[in-house]
Amino acid sequence: MNWPAHGSNPQYLFSALKLPMPDKKIDFSANINPLGPPPILKEKWNQLFLALSDYPDPLGYELKKKLSEKEKIEESHILIGNGGAELIALIGRILTGKRAIIVQPAFSEYEEACRVNSCAVEYHQLMPDQWELGIEELAAKLGNKDALFLCNPCNPTGVYYSQSTLIELIKECERQDCLCIIDEAFYDFLSEYESIIPYIHEFSNLIVIRSMTKMFAIPGLRLGYLMANPSIINQLAASQPHWSVNSLALSAGEWCIESEAHIRATRDLIQNERERLFRFYKEKEFVVSPSLVNFYLLKDPIIVDQMPLFQFLITKGIIPRHTMNFPGLQGRWLRFAIKSPNENDRLMEAMEEWRNRL
Amino acid sequence: MNWPAHGSNPQYLFSALKLPMPDKKIDFSANINPLGPPPILKEKWNQLFLALSDYPDPLGYELKKKLSEKEKIEESHILIGNGGAELIALIGRILTGKRAIIVQPAFSEYEEACRVNSCAVEYHQLMPDQWELGIEELAAKLGNKDALFLCNPCNPTGVYYSQSTLIELIKECERQDCLCIIDEAFYDFLSEYESIIPYIHEFSNLIVIRSMTKMFAIPGLRLGYLMANPSIINQLAASQPHWSVNSLALSAGEWCIESEAHIRATRDLIQNERERLFRFYKEKEFVVSPSLVNFYLLKDPIIVDQMPLFQFLITKGIIPRHTMNFPGLQGRWLRFAIKSPNENDRLMEAMEEWRNRL
Repeated sequence: MNWPAHGSNPQYLFSALKLPMPDKKIDFSANINPLGPPPILKEKWNQLFLALSDYPDPLGYELKKKLSEKEKIEESHILIGNGGAELIALIGRILTGKRAIIVQPAFSEYEEACRVNSCAVEYHQLMPDQWELGIEELAAKLGNKDALFLCNPCNPTGVYYSQSTLIELIKECERQDCLCIIDEAFYDFLSEYESIIPYIHEFSNLIVIRSMTKMFAIPGLRLGYLMANPSIINQLAASQPHWSVNSLALSAGEWCIESEAHIRATRDLIQNERERLFRFYKEKEFVVSPSLVNFYLLKDPIIVDQMPLFQFLITKGIIPRHTMNFPGLQGRWLRFAIKSPNENDRLMEAMEEWRNRL
Repeated sequence: MNWPAHGSNPQYLFSALKLPMPDKKIDFSANINPLGPPPILKEKWNQLFLALSDYPDPLGYELKKKLSEKEKIEESHILIGNGGAELIALIGRILTGKRAIIVQPAFSEYEEACRVNSCAVEYHQLMPDQWELGIEELAAKLGNKDALFLCNPCNPTGVYYSQSTLIELIKECERQDCLCIIDEAFYDFLSEYESIIPYIHEFSNLIVIRSMTKMFAIPGLRLGYLMANPSIINQLAASQPHWSVNSLALSAGEWCIESEAHIRATRDLIQNERERLFRFYKEKEFVVSPSLVNFYLLKDPIIVDQMPLFQFLITKGIIPRHTMNFPGLQGRWLRFAIKSPNENDRLMEAMEEWRNRL
């Protein structure tokens, strides 16, 4: 079967499974803030209508200035992109004909960006149930690599690797002349995050990718940014299409980064719900990944391939993310976003029903 | 001086000229429909808020279906893009290391897309004041070329080359094994347009690019599409980043292509204003290009370099498009968008003042 490569857009999942799409469904396959966009976006929505008819500022000057203040790094070290996916695609281009290693399981776009640019890919496979990074073993594989991709916190496990671990990895990459690409798409869901941005000045091989679509619930609008030393920024920018980031995303981005109360409320909600869900799963003997963010992997240890559970849930209109195309997972886990309390209740009801059926 | 490469975003022009930006200004440098977006966009604006929080359909299924019906061509022959600029950048990628010829003067992104991909560029230079295509001379240059770029109607002249001329050119390209890339970004401003889309089935070397940002006044949102045979579509799609076209653009696009009354009203307005402006210019002895669309080139024949006129206008808050980086123009013409009657009145007042000064 041709499984959709990503979560969201469940119509493609139901079409691949040749199933009718239920009227009522809850999509747990996309890891988006359940509180929705910051209230300021709704308040200023009419103002954004005017932005339709002006070309976007191709340099995103105002947003870059605000990002620079927030991240305490010079504007020359920042590139704004049409979502994280565009930034990953731009990185792929500078890896044309080279060799990369991807810490797996991971967001599938890293491999896709390499493949399109004839960059050979090797995996460093993390193992359940702790998903430890295994730096020594990883370091031993860097010798002939030009780039390493790590998603931190890791999508799909939700596991977070600490600043000290990261610094060790970045140093090892530097020693072995390897770009170290850290995708922090979900960093702002962490209460425990320790920034690696100050190290961009120290390590010219470090690239940090950020997404603004998850925390601020604007995946439809597309917005991300990337931080690295200016020589990398300039290389990447050279092949970015003109006006790649739309005007609405640029304006919305400025408002979003100032929505600190919304970020705090989101973190609190996610933490409470994660604890509540994980207590339930423990009691019902499901296994979950030790996630610190807004999604997690789950398996029912009674079965190996989780497809029966997946099928059970989607017929109830509950849509997890399948893991058929995550190397090392291949259907033996399911990924769930942490959604609103009501939606999580619905999920737990269904899981309880599944448990009682067997 | 480092002239901005594009119209719009006048802040970069004033900054390059080291001039303060006037409070009141009319931007004639961006060729956008003066009537603004179709009324349905305003009516449905609140509905679009909901599109923020869903990932875009990566295949743009619904919009592609509507485009397919409108253009009478199969969906497999259509690629939707994050504005025309992204589609041009994707074409650049499949020309990596090849050779292209650009009919000049032209939109600067063709050359940029080639340059970034190490595609060697040659020009076929059109000459004022008639800007004839000179097919025989052009055909003689195609022998060792992999691709030809032609903007039709031509940006910046506004001159339209007829269907029969185009077919002759496409055939010549086919005979010489050369891709024929026709950018029809402004085709929908023409009353006289004769479609070349039916010829995509006949000529596998034909690529037609369309923009939806000019007629529908949504350059801030980014939306364009491209039509070609499926093997070209698939090549281009392979390096397009995932979710490249945002959800709002996809929905807005569906509504725009059904806004036929808005298109008709726009064409009528533009035609009336163009005739009114051109009568005035003739009377005042300015020279304009024989444009059939919503912008035109202008020069005061009394001077060669038009910089004094440019400077005079911008100090009055009237911002033409400089032509410093259009090969073959290099400041000897200015480009003006056709805007609302009031704005065009302001322009004519300023031009009259200029004429009376000398």
